[in-house]
Amino acid sequence: MAPTDRIVTENTFHIRYAETDSMGITHHSNYIVFFEEARSHYSRERGASYADFERSGYWLTVVEVHARYIVPTRYAQRITARCWVDELKSRAVQFGYEIVDAESGQVCVTGYSKHICITHEGRVTKLPSEWFAAMHEDTTS
Amino acid sequence: MAPTDRIVTENTFHIRYAETDSMGITHHSNYIVFFEEARSHYSRERGASYADFERSGYWLTVVEVHARYIVPTRYAQRITARCWVDELKSRAVQFGYEIVDAESGQVCVTGYSKHICITHEGRVTKLPSEWFAAMHEDTTS
Amino acid sequence: MAPTDRIVTENTFHIRYAETDSMGITHHSNYIVFFEEARSHYSRERGASYADFERSGYWLTVVEVHARYIVPTRYAQRITARCWVDELKSRAVQFGYEIVDAESGQVCVTGYSKHICITHEGRVTKLPSEWFAAMHEDTTS
Amino acid sequence: MAPTDRIVTENTFHIRYAETDSMGITHHSNYIVFFEEARSHYSRERGASYADFERSGYWLTVVEVHARYIVPTRYAQRITARCWVDELKSRAVQFGYEIVDAESGQVCVTGYSKHICITHEGRVTKLPSEWFAAMHEDTTS
Repeated sequence: MAPTDRIVTENTFHIRYAETDSMGITHHSNYIVFFEEARSHYSRERGASYADFERSGYWLTVVEVHARYIVPTRYAQRITARCWVDELKSRAVQFGYEIVDAESGQVCVTGYSKHICITHEGRVTKLPSEWFAAMHEDTTS
Repeated sequence: MAPTDRIVTENTFHIRYAETDSMGITHHSNYIVFFEEARSHYSRERGASYADFERSGYWLTVVEVHARYIVPTRYAQRITARCWVDELKSRAVQFGYEIVDAESGQVCVTGYSKHICITHEGRVTKLPSEWFAAMHEDTTS
Repeated sequence: MAPTDRIVTENTFHIRYAETDSMGITHHSNYIVFFEEARSHYSRERGASYADFERSGYWLTVVEVHARYIVPTRYAQRITARCWVDELKSRAVQFGYEIVDAESGQVCVTGYSKHICITHEGRVTKLPSEWFAAMHEDTTS
Repeated sequence: MAPTDRIVTENTFHIRYAETDSMGITHHSNYIVFFEEARSHYSRERGASYADFERSGYWLTVVEVHARYIVPTRYAQRITARCWVDELKSRAVQFGYEIVDAESGQVCVTGYSKHICITHEGRVTKLPSEWFAAMHEDTTS
């Protein structure tokens, strides 16, 4: 469940037809993309856009991803993707996610992803201080 | 260019990171998905949702698609997908599309898709009358 | 690492350009699709094709997926996807995966997925006996 | 139909489950990716790999794509993607495609794509001479 003691962002969108499969439901690989879009949204909402982060020479490379599928979603369904910072270290961050039905709030998929901060040359490095500060605040507020 | 003599719907969203490629731009195949989402949005806006259409036993199967790429788009860019009915026949419909930068309005990609109305058994059939009426009105208003 | 005491299948293919992202590497969500294709290949190789499984009224619905990203892969790289049965229960199965560079054998991504056997009506059910037998044999040979 | 007076390459693969949609068929956007993989295969077969082309500072940017859908394909179906050079100019090339059932040879989807040669700085430029020579030979043999 999304934590109540930290900042959780939400973005809402429709399931696209291309995201469904022969089972008539959203293909499970797409939730990994929804997680990513949820953290893009998180960074925009928190005033620390990932596009700027990338332009300043950094990447948050993905080292692990996990998803648990509880209830399927379908074409045209409005879903809300929640994102928060699970854990923050000087060179790493873990995000948590919850995909819920936008109308009923029913939890459909949960997951997390772990990331390491690297330079565009591939060297592991500390998160830029303004990013660290923004995300640290989010987990202690 | 989007026609001025008929109903054009618009939906705006961000380019997802997963939609980019090694060139640093949105991969060209994703615009075909944006076209589809644009016609989903069109049908919702016009009160004739494609989800309902499908549930009532029909499909608008795609028989042709075309895209012209003018200006690339990038991760996190806000784009607006415009959709309208290009041509309407008793058993077929052609949609037109324009993908533009949401801020500047610059046209990035244009395209069209042709569809035939079939039953879930695969038989070509007439568009249901309420759908035909809604889309006919859109092209003559 | 792929286990040495059970049957491991391998299929080899090229990374497609559409599967890359702005970082110049394969987008992490695609490995979830490679895992799925690896288990499709596994079922074909083991004489129990998933297409037939589905046609006979069953689905192996995905309830959990996990991936660990070790070394990035790039456009046109030949990779080998290994798949095996991690754990087998009467109504559930867990597959393990390893994505390696086809030339050097370097391990790039590892993961697993958990599945439950359901009917097309959504009821949890036992794996069909011939499937259970085929996969049971694979984990005890 | 694939031309008989020039070099046509073929690569064969299975439809992936993730490539299907709620209609139970391959989602139409995936054929654009199959076209791309077909021209990757073409360039590899002709000894002028696109990966090398890119590394030497060029891109064949997509300016137009077209697909005609004739017969649907489904999960696990083996399909063959045919690719050839339709038209060659000093700064541009058009590829033709045919997606056929690998067993029966039935034509399922046809299409073409138009490309312009640009540098990584985005300037339109002539195709490198060895590429031009290789493709020119293919269209005149």
